[in-house]
Amino acid sequence: MKKNKKKINAAILIIGNEILSGRTQDLNVSFLTNWLNNECGISVYEVRIIPDIEKKIIKNILELKKNFNYVFTTGGVGPTHDDITAQSVSKTFRVRYEYHKEAYEILEKYYGKIKFNDGRKKMAKMPRTSKLIYNPSSAAPGFMIKNVFCLPGVPTILRSMIENCKKYLIKGKTKKSVSINLRTVESNIARELEKIQKKYLSNVDIGSYPFFRLGVVGVAIVLRSSNKIKLNSCKNAVKKMIKIKKIKLFMN
Amino acid sequence: MKKNKKKINAAILIIGNEILSGRTQDLNVSFLTNWLNNECGISVYEVRIIPDIEKKIIKNILELKKNFNYVFTTGGVGPTHDDITAQSVSKTFRVRYEYHKEAYEILEKYYGKIKFNDGRKKMAKMPRTSKLIYNPSSAAPGFMIKNVFCLPGVPTILRSMIENCKKYLIKGKTKKSVSINLRTVESNIARELEKIQKKYLSNVDIGSYPFFRLGVVGVAIVLRSSNKIKLNSCKNAVKKMIKIKKIKLFMN
Repeated sequence: MKKNKKKINAAILIIGNEILSGRTQDLNVSFLTNWLNNECGISVYEVRIIPDIEKKIIKNILELKKNFNYVFTTGGVGPTHDDITAQSVSKTFRVRYEYHKEAYEILEKYYGKIKFNDGRKKMAKMPRTSKLIYNPSSAAPGFMIKNVFCLPGVPTILRSMIENCKKYLIKGKTKKSVSINLRTVESNIARELEKIQKKYLSNVDIGSYPFFRLGVVGVAIVLRSSNKIKLNSCKNAVKKMIKIKKIKLFMN
Repeated sequence: MKKNKKKINAAILIIGNEILSGRTQDLNVSFLTNWLNNECGISVYEVRIIPDIEKKIIKNILELKKNFNYVFTTGGVGPTHDDITAQSVSKTFRVRYEYHKEAYEILEKYYGKIKFNDGRKKMAKMPRTSKLIYNPSSAAPGFMIKNVFCLPGVPTILRSMIENCKKYLIKGKTKKSVSINLRTVESNIARELEKIQKKYLSNVDIGSYPFFRLGVVGVAIVLRSSNKIKLNSCKNAVKKMIKIKKIKLFMN
């Protein structure tokens, strides 16, 4: 994985009617955002969830691939009629949708010649010039073309192959984060926190997230920055505020 | 809730850095998609997750409110500096961002005059002409302006107030769904399923979702339609296919 000091960003495109109908709880957004942000230093700037409709897939990939360094899609790469990601990406890039020789060989070997039916063969078809993302758990590879990475929707399979994306990615500067959990409510610290955020506007992102735990309300203050010194200084500013306001910390 | 025989659709806009950073697992998408689809007969066509950045919020709401019957936003309606949904929606509709008299009274009563500080007062500010969505769990109301509904990001609070959106919504035709769980893999039934989908193209959506359960692989076939007769006929076609291919059902 090459490194880069610049900010690198990505968008995620979840393709699947089952998420939009509410049938399936999406698990890939939180996994991918964590992996990209923390492992790769790539900030996820946007996520979209769209149905298995070719026109929508094309329109969304066209927009996202132009606006972000990388686009990760999940879903629609299986053997059935509702799996149309590979065809749609081929049309997006105006390249042929055809058998990838190595993917064909991998799948033929996995299923055996006799059981290698049309549905299974379909999983070897992808946009011309695609590079493979190997799949150690169920053989069918994902693929990468230009700055678009196409992965399966089944979370366990996606997770098993994600490391194989790394060789194609340029790594950005990873952010460090600090969490401080307070026994208070947001509205008690809103004004002070705003002042601190203004002071550290260009260096540290300050988030404030209310929670309920064991019947007690609290607020998690999360500071994120790629600059360690500013992060530490900002943390001290928050701690000073906590002391002045006599707020207790939440013990984990 | 008024009823309508037409198809009614919606988009969901999740506003929050904490989801994009991977810190927080989103729970609102699956809740809202289920509620809209099943309770209201409103099909969710798109979901977007974006950061707490005013320009992005405005741009996305402008796009979504034009393309869909309803837009539901979550997040960014609390008292802290990173809560900027109400200001951004005011700018989107080019109306004043100001105190809503009733919301102010609700919050003043809830906190008491002495504890009603600036952060708390901020939660009474919203776009002029907004209608309130009452909040039984933490008082601060959500709001609705034109076809845009703004709700909080904390899942328990959102769930407690969702029924209060109903009076503003026109109900669509709810879809029925049938699930058939098979002891097989997708690639074994892909061709037959495609034929069935082609036959019922305009009436029934057929989805196919692989799963792993207790060490056994399976496929859930999900049929969705607002036409009961076509749904039943399609179900019989799938059952016939299962019989011919000698596939066992998955017992729950």
